[in-house]
Amino acid sequence: MMKKLWLLLLFSSLSLHAQNEDGLENKIKKIYQEALTQGKSYDWLDHLTNQIGGRLSGSLNAEWAVKWAKEELDALPLDSVWLQAVMVPKWVRGTFEYANIESSPGNTINVNICALGGSIATPSIGIRANVIEVKHIDDLAKLGKEKIKGKIIFFNRPMQVDLVNTFKAYGGAVDQRYSGAAEAAKYGALAVIVRSLNFRLDDYPHTGVMSYGDLPINKRIPAAAISTNHAELLSSMIALNPKLRFFIKQNCKNYPEVRSYNVIAEIKGQESPEKIILVGAHLDSWDLGDGAHDDGAGVVQSMEVLRLMSLKDFRPKNTIRVVLFANEENGLMGAKAYSKRVKKDKEQHLLALESDSGGFTPRGFIFDTKVQYLNKILSWKPYFDPYYIHLFEGNGSGADVSLLKGNSLVLAGLKTDSQRYFIHHHSEMDTFDQINKRELELGAATMAALVYLTDQLGLE
Amino acid sequence: MMKKLWLLLLFSSLSLHAQNEDGLENKIKKIYQEALTQGKSYDWLDHLTNQIGGRLSGSLNAEWAVKWAKEELDALPLDSVWLQAVMVPKWVRGTFEYANIESSPGNTINVNICALGGSIATPSIGIRANVIEVKHIDDLAKLGKEKIKGKIIFFNRPMQVDLVNTFKAYGGAVDQRYSGAAEAAKYGALAVIVRSLNFRLDDYPHTGVMSYGDLPINKRIPAAAISTNHAELLSSMIALNPKLRFFIKQNCKNYPEVRSYNVIAEIKGQESPEKIILVGAHLDSWDLGDGAHDDGAGVVQSMEVLRLMSLKDFRPKNTIRVVLFANEENGLMGAKAYSKRVKKDKEQHLLALESDSGGFTPRGFIFDTKVQYLNKILSWKPYFDPYYIHLFEGNGSGADVSLLKGNSLVLAGLKTDSQRYFIHHHSEMDTFDQINKRELELGAATMAALVYLTDQLGLE
Repeated sequence: MMKKLWLLLLFSSLSLHAQNEDGLENKIKKIYQEALTQGKSYDWLDHLTNQIGGRLSGSLNAEWAVKWAKEELDALPLDSVWLQAVMVPKWVRGTFEYANIESSPGNTINVNICALGGSIATPSIGIRANVIEVKHIDDLAKLGKEKIKGKIIFFNRPMQVDLVNTFKAYGGAVDQRYSGAAEAAKYGALAVIVRSLNFRLDDYPHTGVMSYGDLPINKRIPAAAISTNHAELLSSMIALNPKLRFFIKQNCKNYPEVRSYNVIAEIKGQESPEKIILVGAHLDSWDLGDGAHDDGAGVVQSMEVLRLMSLKDFRPKNTIRVVLFANEENGLMGAKAYSKRVKKDKEQHLLALESDSGGFTPRGFIFDTKVQYLNKILSWKPYFDPYYIHLFEGNGSGADVSLLKGNSLVLAGLKTDSQRYFIHHHSEMDTFDQINKRELELGAATMAALVYLTDQLGLE
Repeated sequence: MMKKLWLLLLFSSLSLHAQNEDGLENKIKKIYQEALTQGKSYDWLDHLTNQIGGRLSGSLNAEWAVKWAKEELDALPLDSVWLQAVMVPKWVRGTFEYANIESSPGNTINVNICALGGSIATPSIGIRANVIEVKHIDDLAKLGKEKIKGKIIFFNRPMQVDLVNTFKAYGGAVDQRYSGAAEAAKYGALAVIVRSLNFRLDDYPHTGVMSYGDLPINKRIPAAAISTNHAELLSSMIALNPKLRFFIKQNCKNYPEVRSYNVIAEIKGQESPEKIILVGAHLDSWDLGDGAHDDGAGVVQSMEVLRLMSLKDFRPKNTIRVVLFANEENGLMGAKAYSKRVKKDKEQHLLALESDSGGFTPRGFIFDTKVQYLNKILSWKPYFDPYYIHLFEGNGSGADVSLLKGNSLVLAGLKTDSQRYFIHHHSEMDTFDQINKRELELGAATMAALVYLTDQLGLE
């Protein structure tokens, strides 16, 4: 009896050993199983979005998010958790914006707008003026100062709907939002209204960062986004009556910088603790929704990667670090501070992987790296096949990790199925109820799989 | 001036000619552009779901759907549109079901149930009895007649959440719904309650077809689905109090078969009109939602494929036919009638492609075909790369087209990103507002691309 038991134990131990040797497929399977059955990302996101909410840089919510994230990471069996102080911009929306179209004196239709992040307020009595609709910033030069002076410029170029890559469509339209006000101000415009960056026709305005560039303070003009439905309405009403007037009132304000923090935590590597594999996302969000997709999803997925790697099945050779960056949306100050520190301390990063394309079904990764490392990673594709992860492209990474260029062998971004992303992005529609638990968890598992393969197989 | 114009025209004509010769990539691009910018699928689906609604076989709505589909197809520039008569089952839910858990006499909690399709009613005063929870049909034999007789059997095995392929998880749990009542009845059970086939914990019961097999009519017992939240509740209450009683009342009814129709339309091939490429979906749906994902999406995508192929850019060599099948959900009578006709007329199908996995982002196809044809199709993968269509598997097709086995060189099914599918499937949650326009249109374009490549390049 005892002998049999002993043989059984020996046999179990041998087969366990064998599995540890060969079984990277099994480890990856374990990652997905754990994320889908015991995952914490969904509950974490529930708290971050529903208990804290939108967390714009400089806001009290942003500070609560820092405190919460540190506490949750402190509760995991990690080697260290710390905060890196960073100064961030503070812009406040104030009371909700108000706008209407006045087709004839006293005859108005209210429309949905929101101030763009960084915009100045209107005078307290608002601005009422005629509107000129344009499609491109270049159109301003063609119109010239004489026609633009004293008017409101309405940028109304839609995102290109026949681009399957929705981020490419975003890239093709975002100049209107980012630079529209600075450019129109040079021609004497009083304000700008920008069509929301949303494929769908609906009633929600989408905010986002804008910049006045080097425009002197006294030349700056207010900038707001208008919902796609109301952009269509305004455009058709201008076609009927070019003399109509638009009224806009907003009282947003820029304050001096305030202190915030990157939240950082890590598991020390068993073999090469000086080599770092980073997963990260940005903890800040815009203020209109609760920042569930942008980028609460990335935050809890990154935390989940660290939790998975802290389980006894996985003993990373290299240090696995999570960085929850402050202030991605309107300044990148968290990423700047982190990369500065990395350069100063000459820290060696193998991989820096960001999740910032929403909590949708993962499709793969984009990479910014040398061909030799990309080829190494491409050789791992078969490990991802059972999970329908197929997209491995060498054309980018993420806004935060991109600042580690030169200090990380590989920069990468998780890519999701992003057809729905711009419905939510920077708007009231970015809320927890729009997150699918399985999709969120699959994203976390997919990140963890890349992290674990990089850790176990190395890049050289 | 005239000379220059003439040269310009000649040059345009030459470059157009060159493009027609080489440009399959361009044609595929055109398909996607057209579907995303001028597509009709979304508006069609709006009508089918919001103006007609759920369209269970034998219902008035199902007849309206036939009429509507024929009219819409008649309005396209096709060669013929016709109806194929077919007898279909008629099962009617009646007034909404009612159920509660009685933890002690007079102390009840209402729970959400719905009758399974094909189930008989309870007596008009309902059934109240003790409940036995089981996970597997096999558990019935272990319990035996003595324990089961006079009880309600509660099948509560969840879908396996760690399967990334959600249809596989469905396949692993659906036996409880389909055969649970027939099996439990053999042991003297009074009724069965089945956990809804939904990964998510929510309040919606999900119906679906069940069968009594060869059980005599007087042995049949009522069967209903319970929402996942209430399945969890019931399970935890049974654990506390195994003597609790469950009350169920439903008055659904099976009527004699009625006449319905497959709706069929086609564009005759320019070169080989006798060779048919079929796209199809099922026009019927369950009655609880409006059948937007299952399978309104497939219906309008199939119609859109035919519309796209009717545009002047595409002159199919082979006949392109759409079949909107009657009665997939509870009988497959439409598919049976169609395949019978095909066999009788010795019609030659090259490809029969079905869309029945929801209007989500397309990921690729599954195929049931010979290796030689599969390899041919796999050689077309590069055409699909720009659209992130990557999944080409040789492990299935679709319920309706599978009956054409032996009469079509290739059977195929569109595969979508199906993580969210079972939230909606067969429930009140299957509604038009849960459809994303771009995702729906991308599915139609992806089907059209496969159809066009098959048409132009052939399978041999």
